[in-house]
Amino acid sequence: MKYGIVIFPSKKVQDLANSYRKRYDPHYALITPHLTLKSPFEATDEEINVIANAIREVAKSTDPIELTIKKFSSFSPVNNVIYLKVEPTEEILSLHKALHSGKLESNPEYSFVPHITIGQKLSDDEHSDVLGSLKMMNIEQSETIDRFHLLYQLENGSWTVYETFRLGKDLE
Amino acid sequence: MKYGIVIFPSKKVQDLANSYRKRYDPHYALITPHLTLKSPFEATDEEINVIANAIREVAKSTDPIELTIKKFSSFSPVNNVIYLKVEPTEEILSLHKALHSGKLESNPEYSFVPHITIGQKLSDDEHSDVLGSLKMMNIEQSETIDRFHLLYQLENGSWTVYETFRLGKDLE
Repeated sequence: MKYGIVIFPSKKVQDLANSYRKRYDPHYALITPHLTLKSPFEATDEEINVIANAIREVAKSTDPIELTIKKFSSFSPVNNVIYLKVEPTEEILSLHKALHSGKLESNPEYSFVPHITIGQKLSDDEHSDVLGSLKMMNIEQSETIDRFHLLYQLENGSWTVYETFRLGKDLE
Repeated sequence: MKYGIVIFPSKKVQDLANSYRKRYDPHYALITPHLTLKSPFEATDEEINVIANAIREVAKSTDPIELTIKKFSSFSPVNNVIYLKVEPTEEILSLHKALHSGKLESNPEYSFVPHITIGQKLSDDEHSDVLGSLKMMNIEQSETIDRFHLLYQLENGSWTVYETFRLGKDLE
């Protein structure tokens, strides 16, 4: 089965992202707006138990993190992907690293650029039009993230949550 | 914000449900296949913390439950809703009850019939055609459910997971 790890930002940010994704992201109906912490990977039912335990340890030893968004950006020319750029703070980089170390070892295809996709698979023209108008907008959003989620993918491509991991030691 | 509590059945059952939902359920893109344990309710950010704590207590004191599906059924003539009927075992009924008692008190609109919707808002003709052919099919699926989820709804109607609750006392 295919699994992935994501952060769902606040409803406010998800609603904003969806207002663009509806038109510009073919994955709109498959998953709600998210920041990918670990790209899709394969695991068996047995493996995922070991993996979930390892993720739980990471979550326990990670404090809630600040997520700050200041602008729209794009992966062009590599990909015509437009996204909300999330500030690459020490905290989020080290959470990403912890989710790719030890029992969770894996080599990400790309270097980690924390982001929330709002458009993808755009034509070159559409990409530059949309990005051009978004670049003119001011955005300033900061929020505390106290959890992330392990998801798995169904046959139709949509994602279901397998488990939530709350950040921090002070949990009952 | 609007919250709800659901069980996501196994990938196998979700894939089966989606093969019908794709054609017959207008909510197909808003949420993956699920069994509703608590219907949508409103809560503020402050209230949801108290509620999540109460749900956590319920989960801790509930053992994993068997979920058994033996047939397709329908809520007709009340509603043209076709669903996978989940056996109303003692375990699932008492989990439902616990999620409507104490701090989680609320009066469900309908009596609890555990089910996984596969079609809704069907015309009378479509409803009887689809149900007629499904009634001829054999289905026999049993699985252990060891978690359920608290979700919230975005402005576009889709649902995001807020938190997973694992059932049972023997958790690290």
